[in-house]
Amino acid sequence: MKNNEGYVAINYIDCQEDYKSRFEELFSTRKRAIDEMPGFRFMRVLKPENNEGSYLIVSFWDSREAFENWKGSEAFLEGHKRGFQDVIDAKRQGKEAPMTSDFKTYIVLTD
Amino acid sequence: MKNNEGYVAINYIDCQEDYKSRFEELFSTRKRAIDEMPGFRFMRVLKPENNEGSYLIVSFWDSREAFENWKGSEAFLEGHKRGFQDVIDAKRQGKEAPMTSDFKTYIVLTD
Repeated sequence: MKNNEGYVAINYIDCQEDYKSRFEELFSTRKRAIDEMPGFRFMRVLKPENNEGSYLIVSFWDSREAFENWKGSEAFLEGHKRGFQDVIDAKRQGKEAPMTSDFKTYIVLTD
Repeated sequence: MKNNEGYVAINYIDCQEDYKSRFEELFSTRKRAIDEMPGFRFMRVLKPENNEGSYLIVSFWDSREAFENWKGSEAFLEGHKRGFQDVIDAKRQGKEAPMTSDFKTYIVLTD
């Protein structure tokens, strides 16, 4: 698989201001279960330089199939467990979700 | 420089429908001058899978300084020459620009 091929998923995440440090902590201590998934290449967690706008979770895959396989996996649930729990807890308390996310997917056109 | 450090610039590019094939051609035949810039790591050109939304030009750098240095360089002008000319030509003919771009910059939080 060459650098000018492949599939990229970007999760655009908007955090409430007072959740940002927790969000960053979750990723800096992530379980790395995704790293063992077939077809996974690498990922980067990107923080907007001016502290405005979305965080980006960018993951690089061999194919759409590899990404979809991960999304349906136990590893996906396990990897998102703490974040999902934070959202559930906020809802239980009648609060707004501390973060919202939006997956967008891309074909690598070239390097 | 480790994978969990660095700087990322994403150029979000919106193309008019009839310009998309030209846009893709420009990148598939790019001069690769950027590849020789100090502090440049790699880049990927991403096409939205559903053909809606922005193309993303994602470039990975050692530091903000390396990125800024490239943006002020001859290589930057040379690398964008054909695209810039397309925009100039459209304006001369009183047409809308065939593409618009928006740079956003990010700190790598972790890998």
